[in-house]
Amino acid sequence: MPQKVTPDASRRSETARRAILAAALDLVGEVGYAKLTIEGIAAAAGVGKQTIYRWWPSKGSLLFDAFLTLATDGQEDQAAALPDTGDVMADLKMVLRATVAELNEPRYDQPMRALHTEIVHDPALAADYAKRLDEPMRELKKDRLRAAQRAGQVAEDVDLDVAVDMLFGPILNRWLQRTGPLTPEYADRVVETALRGLQPRKAEQF
Amino acid sequence: MPQKVTPDASRRSETARRAILAAALDLVGEVGYAKLTIEGIAAAAGVGKQTIYRWWPSKGSLLFDAFLTLATDGQEDQAAALPDTGDVMADLKMVLRATVAELNEPRYDQPMRALHTEIVHDPALAADYAKRLDEPMRELKKDRLRAAQRAGQVAEDVDLDVAVDMLFGPILNRWLQRTGPLTPEYADRVVETALRGLQPRKAEQF
Repeated sequence: MPQKVTPDASRRSETARRAILAAALDLVGEVGYAKLTIEGIAAAAGVGKQTIYRWWPSKGSLLFDAFLTLATDGQEDQAAALPDTGDVMADLKMVLRATVAELNEPRYDQPMRALHTEIVHDPALAADYAKRLDEPMRELKKDRLRAAQRAGQVAEDVDLDVAVDMLFGPILNRWLQRTGPLTPEYADRVVETALRGLQPRKAEQF
Repeated sequence: MPQKVTPDASRRSETARRAILAAALDLVGEVGYAKLTIEGIAAAAGVGKQTIYRWWPSKGSLLFDAFLTLATDGQEDQAAALPDTGDVMADLKMVLRATVAELNEPRYDQPMRALHTEIVHDPALAADYAKRLDEPMRELKKDRLRAAQRAGQVAEDVDLDVAVDMLFGPILNRWLQRTGPLTPEYADRVVETALRGLQPRKAEQF
């Protein structure tokens, strides 16, 4: 970002930045990641290539920022926490159903697939993703599970990182690897199975 | 495959086929999937491009066959079933630890990453993968869980597809998305957490 800018210049910068991020998301949806170019994004956003290179070192980092904007847009005034109605099963079903709905949205599909496959091949981008997106989201999920532990709904000795992986991993995988239909019912089954476990338990216990 | 071949021609074909598959795996490890070409594979295998195009329509399908060969090589004489010692927790830990060891092997890393990212962007390859690799493997896993149900170690009403996703999904994800270290201990935690579930249970029950 340029230093010591006037309010007007700052506003113009922000407008250009938003145009670039929007163009990147639109274009990756149209042409796919492999054919996405900085030139193409610059043309679509109505800016020069150098404007883009001043702010982002690569198309991967630009797409990551674009995706981060998409993921947080309009949510600035929402509390950054998972719902807590006191019923961890109902709350997790709501969150996993929302994740399913988001992954099934066409405007998310291409950019998120592009981002996830870049992560697979690019350890630096993976580290950036982990630090800026996965870890903050993971903390929110673990906070909700910690509240459930305090309420006696999740066992004290559960490894919360494994719990998060078991709840959200199957959803992400089924979407990425296309191993089956990604439905709200599937989200419910994952939550029920994760909470109850595979082993039999006495019917009267819950 | 050519029809009505003599035994010698058939042996030569098989030799060429194996050389091509080996070259594809070596090359994708060296240059990555994006820079992998049929020309490059043909040169490395010492065959003509047309020989490759006669057997495979695309580099994706060739790499898939190469990976299938890698995954099943030397296992023809092993029983196509998961271990069953009568202790489902111990058996699943053994299988998940073996999966972790395989994913951490350098010769698997690049070709498997290439295959998995192609699947994300190519629904036809995803369908082929599901039919020829995921579904047969999934049936073996479900067979083991069905045996555990008969032995009273897994609840009757568990959705076995969800159970398989919850056991193997976190391993695949952690490897693909690089969200944390992929260790034997992590494999153990996943099996324990999946079997016991997140909810507390009476200490005397198990």
